[in-house]
Amino acid sequence: MTAATLLIPSQSAPVPATAPLVSRYQAVRQQTEALCRPLLPEDTVVQPMVDVSPPKWHLAHTTWFFETFLLGEYQPGYQVFHPDYAFLFNSYYNSLGSRVNRADRGTLSRPALADVYAYRTHVDAQMLALLQRQAELPESFAALLELGLQHEQQHQELLVTDIKYILSTNPLAPAYLPASADAPVSDAPGPPAAWLPVRGGVHRIGYEGAGFCFDNEQAPHEVYVADFSLQNRLVTNAEYLQFIEAGGYSDFRYWLGEGWELVQQAGWQAPLYWVRRPEGWFRFTHHGLRPLDLAAPVTHVSFYEADAYAHWAGARLPTEQEWEIAARQFHPEAAAGTFLESRSFDPQPLPADAAPDQCHQLLGDAWEWTYSAYHAYPGYERAAGALGEYNGKFMINQLVLRGGSCATPESHIRLTYRNFFHADKRWQFTGIRLAR
Amino acid sequence: MTAATLLIPSQSAPVPATAPLVSRYQAVRQQTEALCRPLLPEDTVVQPMVDVSPPKWHLAHTTWFFETFLLGEYQPGYQVFHPDYAFLFNSYYNSLGSRVNRADRGTLSRPALADVYAYRTHVDAQMLALLQRQAELPESFAALLELGLQHEQQHQELLVTDIKYILSTNPLAPAYLPASADAPVSDAPGPPAAWLPVRGGVHRIGYEGAGFCFDNEQAPHEVYVADFSLQNRLVTNAEYLQFIEAGGYSDFRYWLGEGWELVQQAGWQAPLYWVRRPEGWFRFTHHGLRPLDLAAPVTHVSFYEADAYAHWAGARLPTEQEWEIAARQFHPEAAAGTFLESRSFDPQPLPADAAPDQCHQLLGDAWEWTYSAYHAYPGYERAAGALGEYNGKFMINQLVLRGGSCATPESHIRLTYRNFFHADKRWQFTGIRLAR
Amino acid sequence: MTAATLLIPSQSAPVPATAPLVSRYQAVRQQTEALCRPLLPEDTVVQPMVDVSPPKWHLAHTTWFFETFLLGEYQPGYQVFHPDYAFLFNSYYNSLGSRVNRADRGTLSRPALADVYAYRTHVDAQMLALLQRQAELPESFAALLELGLQHEQQHQELLVTDIKYILSTNPLAPAYLPASADAPVSDAPGPPAAWLPVRGGVHRIGYEGAGFCFDNEQAPHEVYVADFSLQNRLVTNAEYLQFIEAGGYSDFRYWLGEGWELVQQAGWQAPLYWVRRPEGWFRFTHHGLRPLDLAAPVTHVSFYEADAYAHWAGARLPTEQEWEIAARQFHPEAAAGTFLESRSFDPQPLPADAAPDQCHQLLGDAWEWTYSAYHAYPGYERAAGALGEYNGKFMINQLVLRGGSCATPESHIRLTYRNFFHADKRWQFTGIRLAR
Amino acid sequence: MTAATLLIPSQSAPVPATAPLVSRYQAVRQQTEALCRPLLPEDTVVQPMVDVSPPKWHLAHTTWFFETFLLGEYQPGYQVFHPDYAFLFNSYYNSLGSRVNRADRGTLSRPALADVYAYRTHVDAQMLALLQRQAELPESFAALLELGLQHEQQHQELLVTDIKYILSTNPLAPAYLPASADAPVSDAPGPPAAWLPVRGGVHRIGYEGAGFCFDNEQAPHEVYVADFSLQNRLVTNAEYLQFIEAGGYSDFRYWLGEGWELVQQAGWQAPLYWVRRPEGWFRFTHHGLRPLDLAAPVTHVSFYEADAYAHWAGARLPTEQEWEIAARQFHPEAAAGTFLESRSFDPQPLPADAAPDQCHQLLGDAWEWTYSAYHAYPGYERAAGALGEYNGKFMINQLVLRGGSCATPESHIRLTYRNFFHADKRWQFTGIRLAR
Repeated sequence: MTAATLLIPSQSAPVPATAPLVSRYQAVRQQTEALCRPLLPEDTVVQPMVDVSPPKWHLAHTTWFFETFLLGEYQPGYQVFHPDYAFLFNSYYNSLGSRVNRADRGTLSRPALADVYAYRTHVDAQMLALLQRQAELPESFAALLELGLQHEQQHQELLVTDIKYILSTNPLAPAYLPASADAPVSDAPGPPAAWLPVRGGVHRIGYEGAGFCFDNEQAPHEVYVADFSLQNRLVTNAEYLQFIEAGGYSDFRYWLGEGWELVQQAGWQAPLYWVRRPEGWFRFTHHGLRPLDLAAPVTHVSFYEADAYAHWAGARLPTEQEWEIAARQFHPEAAAGTFLESRSFDPQPLPADAAPDQCHQLLGDAWEWTYSAYHAYPGYERAAGALGEYNGKFMINQLVLRGGSCATPESHIRLTYRNFFHADKRWQFTGIRLAR
Repeated sequence: MTAATLLIPSQSAPVPATAPLVSRYQAVRQQTEALCRPLLPEDTVVQPMVDVSPPKWHLAHTTWFFETFLLGEYQPGYQVFHPDYAFLFNSYYNSLGSRVNRADRGTLSRPALADVYAYRTHVDAQMLALLQRQAELPESFAALLELGLQHEQQHQELLVTDIKYILSTNPLAPAYLPASADAPVSDAPGPPAAWLPVRGGVHRIGYEGAGFCFDNEQAPHEVYVADFSLQNRLVTNAEYLQFIEAGGYSDFRYWLGEGWELVQQAGWQAPLYWVRRPEGWFRFTHHGLRPLDLAAPVTHVSFYEADAYAHWAGARLPTEQEWEIAARQFHPEAAAGTFLESRSFDPQPLPADAAPDQCHQLLGDAWEWTYSAYHAYPGYERAAGALGEYNGKFMINQLVLRGGSCATPESHIRLTYRNFFHADKRWQFTGIRLAR
Repeated sequence: MTAATLLIPSQSAPVPATAPLVSRYQAVRQQTEALCRPLLPEDTVVQPMVDVSPPKWHLAHTTWFFETFLLGEYQPGYQVFHPDYAFLFNSYYNSLGSRVNRADRGTLSRPALADVYAYRTHVDAQMLALLQRQAELPESFAALLELGLQHEQQHQELLVTDIKYILSTNPLAPAYLPASADAPVSDAPGPPAAWLPVRGGVHRIGYEGAGFCFDNEQAPHEVYVADFSLQNRLVTNAEYLQFIEAGGYSDFRYWLGEGWELVQQAGWQAPLYWVRRPEGWFRFTHHGLRPLDLAAPVTHVSFYEADAYAHWAGARLPTEQEWEIAARQFHPEAAAGTFLESRSFDPQPLPADAAPDQCHQLLGDAWEWTYSAYHAYPGYERAAGALGEYNGKFMINQLVLRGGSCATPESHIRLTYRNFFHADKRWQFTGIRLAR
Repeated sequence: MTAATLLIPSQSAPVPATAPLVSRYQAVRQQTEALCRPLLPEDTVVQPMVDVSPPKWHLAHTTWFFETFLLGEYQPGYQVFHPDYAFLFNSYYNSLGSRVNRADRGTLSRPALADVYAYRTHVDAQMLALLQRQAELPESFAALLELGLQHEQQHQELLVTDIKYILSTNPLAPAYLPASADAPVSDAPGPPAAWLPVRGGVHRIGYEGAGFCFDNEQAPHEVYVADFSLQNRLVTNAEYLQFIEAGGYSDFRYWLGEGWELVQQAGWQAPLYWVRRPEGWFRFTHHGLRPLDLAAPVTHVSFYEADAYAHWAGARLPTEQEWEIAARQFHPEAAAGTFLESRSFDPQPLPADAAPDQCHQLLGDAWEWTYSAYHAYPGYERAAGALGEYNGKFMINQLVLRGGSCATPESHIRLTYRNFFHADKRWQFTGIRLAR
């Protein structure tokens, strides 16, 4: 449902100096507003499906997070900006009281967008004042501040995908950003994928470093896997198109039962945003309707589609354990994937000279569905208080995705990062990597 | 569902001169925009229930009506302002092709509000140019123009009620207009109602004049009614409060079966917009939350509530035939009700010196539920073409309401006017007048 | 929802002697059981749609009616047969406490069918004992007994139609009764219908006799109608087939708005029970699947279909006032329609020598949809107590049907009888007669 | 969704001799009929919720399985008993064509129960004839026969739980079997549970023997687990009652998010079938309403309740790997649990002298929810053809349960057996064992 997860502050982590934290705070907050700049006030209000939140809500909810968990806790005598905002902008914390039904977020025209920006300005001013006296504050302050920033980065990704969905359902098919006329689109598939073998046995997974991680990446622990192989890149649009053309969407044998029911009931015949026209396949993108890029990774597929594709292709999806073991082994030092900062808003084809014996696109481009239920790691404990609701209560009926996407801020992602969505969701930048 | 109905131009009607028509066109169009002026762009987009349309949609749909039925028909070579607007802003005309689902109007952030105003400006300029050469146009032009103006007046009423509903569902309870601090609220019931006897027999009802009427007011015809009496004013909040306090909402005996099921399922305990607080009853209004005005007419009641109240009070609702017969007999020359132009946005108490032997509030203040199904009058014929869908196809499962409301433009209402809604609807300014 | 209605005992009615009443009681009760005799226990339990009740429920509910309203009231010290049966077999009387949800009647395997028959035997024995001492009982007893018998006759009709529906949804298409191999089916349309003119003016309608009637037929009152004509017979399958073949189900112009939505959503392309096969049209009947009888009246149409057919045919449906005025004028002394007692379970074609200047099929064969909402007659009052719920609370959102059907007991029907159903219902034997 | 799973015949398994197979065939088939003997025909038809199938359907579906997979494959020229039964009694095999909607099984009164028994008799006669010539048949025949028997045993368990549910929703609360008046009910909790430590490391799980297993128990493989402890018995009603009395159902902190939503929406306040009365807690059982047995294992809890209970108790649920590792270590040679054959139809308290250092109730009594998603084991492959749908397509959004229940035939269960249900299901005999 949501990618938000909880900070377990590493005990040995050095408390960052005030100066860089102030800069990071300002940079993250400005990034959010920059993403909303191309929108009209009208765009920031609507909610065409329940999973999507209006951009105005994201702008306010992330601010409410700092107000509630930082200002409310560490600034003595802090008065909330508005007494009703906690009701309006609490997402899902039962500990913090009642709230607007999620499905009704798109019926609320007020507070005005301008009021929400005033809210941000107010909270930012207070936060910056608080940051000036960080030296006096307990260590938990820095940990919660870090969590607030990571949380806002998660909502930056959701802003990107929610904006896309909002514009996509409009019959006018408006573009979030104009496409440059000469933006290249590959009309040929790239080179075939290669299989990278991984030696099985007992491996260790989970976060062990000194930096930030979410609680669901804890604790590090041993797992046993058999030998396996992983493809060295994501499945491409060209490859997925072969599945479509081979009748993949009309043959129940490739599908899980609940997936097959959904395909029939919803009438799916291609990934979300694909449009078939007399002149060929197109996709709705942040730059409007664009021809299908054959060499680019396929995205906006549900777990059901990823799994069916894998069956059709004679392979399977990796488990999250396999993914992390392989990623630790193969991931190059310098991540070269496509992240939010590129503003390309779509996963990108591999360069022609990509080395076949390296593993590409592990971070960025598209979240990779794994065949692992999103459950707690051994020894996982929910934190006390409201933040105990951040991650733990979602650990049922969802699947783990790994690696981040083209909508993920580069500084936000890690090899141990565990994202999670229900099997039917397609509006995130979700893709496929095969294992066998 | 909608109050819109179709013009049958009276053959003997004098074609109005160009000058006044231009003035009326401009006045009506400006009235619509004036109603939207207090709104933010955000307010014009949302749709908190399916019956409500976003104000932006009303602004565009009324414009589409002129573009389609006037410019498209009488201006040779007219090019539509935007090729997709017919899909976006057609309300329910199957004759004119497919359209956005009614329930999805609130998911559309585009066209921007500014684009819709540009659309209005464009169509107005074209219409004014066309009006200059009205003398050359066939008589049907004037009839359709009249229909377009009446249609826009109907949407002015819907704008008033839809805006109220949109703001009412917001936890911030924002006011459309600020309330003047000293706005009076009566804290005592007014004088008791009087019964006005009406002699039965064969009477004639239906529109017979030379001016405009909708097709559903045609044809004039005879009806037989027995002797009856009608109350000389609308039921007040004070009277309705007695029904509530007597347990009216928890005693099935007063209710129609489907009404009783609805009361239980929806948890109704008072009219729409009523709020019980420790210090007494309040109502949400266009001026925010205000104390209950005891002497004012009750409004925002469903037919089920009106009918149950009448049973409890030992009376009944009038039929539409009774209403019209009585109204023809009693309605004073100068209508003194409360209309849209008053900008009071609520029905008003009778003045203390209101004559008990006169019939008050027949026009304006609140639509009066009748115990008459909305069916065709004898001899009614649907018009050919798209306008045949204006009224006729709604003639099932709805009830007739008479007399207009505080949201009705004064020039729009007549004693023969037939409005219609389903028995469960409450967001219009609907009230109660008793018969026996 | 239901055709049940309330007795207003005529003050001047002679109290019938005990002997015939006993006979009528026994005859009516045996008729119900005779209708259930061809069923298996399994058939008596299921409920394939919410409007249909399991036959076992009908057997018990009619018995509960006598137990509650007769034995419970007039037999001192009467102990109910089973303490839970009131909860199980109360249909819709809020006055008599809570009850099983209507939609859940088909989930109840107990009491066993045998237990229900034992319940009938018990109540019948008690009733017959009570009837022996009828002379000592107040007059109200006879009136309620009459109501109980009329009520059971109403459920006989529902048994016929519910059994048909239950068997029709079974893929095995089982026949309630075997068809005789040589049962004739007309493969040619009958003679054309003739129009019978009726003079308008003030007429009197409503029940005025000394026998039994339901409260909704009261009080007799004057109505005004203009001159009109009525067809001398019901619309036939051959005529309705022309409407189908002319594309009636795919042209919105003939349909009321809510009807058109339903046609599209439900995929209706013909009346209920019609099946198109390579060799022609068939209908599911009480005798299994049978070829369409072209000369027989069309039946199992909704009001929407009846209304759309009438529009297509350039006519309209009569109002219930018109129907009753014409019926009083034209109905022959000796009703010759098809009733329950014929056990034909389908409306029958007119004989070849039917007089064109007479009005046929007014009683029996098929209920005739009128264009009249089911509202209270002037002066109607709901009775006090539980029986006040019999008819009055259904007087909203339904349409009046007149004349009875092939499933109506002949002794049950009258020219003033007002049946009522929602516009979308098709599982009763509903048909069409045109007016203009 | 269903517990049915697919046979992978072990290559080295000796083909059983004809004689014992005939006996087993007859014994299994008779067991099914014996379970239905106390039912009325009426009981065998209804379906009070979609997960439940009418007993008549189970009787026919298990027969259809033998007809389709055995007679249809191995008996040349076999004619099906009825051409429509495949449509009626196919459960979920897309490979075998269309079928009745699962939710509509309870609307079908035909074929009659007697017809279904005739179907069983016919197929049994054919099967026994076929078994006479088993020596001539390929080895695959024995494997499919085994599967058919295992399949029918799975439906025996469903019969037990579906019958319970059918009777429980009836306001008459009928008993399936009479309770002996002196059946003991413990009114005191048993001795406290003990923790049994298990040493972690790499262990092997999955079926490795020479007998029958389902495909989802394959292939045996290594897993790594850390040290853990398991309780030596199931959680009791007394213990669960403490959770209820401590407010467990009204404190969101113990619950997974989707579970908490369900608790509030469905109004759960105790396990399924629990009834609070002035004199204490009761449970609906196969013997009618009975006082709560404090020492007996709690059952009819959803995964959400099991998980919330574990949180409240400061423990957790075991994974299926942990369960199997511990069960292999602790399970005594002679299983002493409560199985279908006991006809007790409820899990039983531990004997007072149960050894605290042994692990009890591993097999039988109640299915134990594990914190493991029902996914494929490494190397799992769906079989070709229709039987590939038996297990594999359900491997999403369900949780594994281990150990069988009091409704499981003793010969049907194994330590490696993997049952699976959605987290919200409660109508099976599901219970709780704690780990930490």
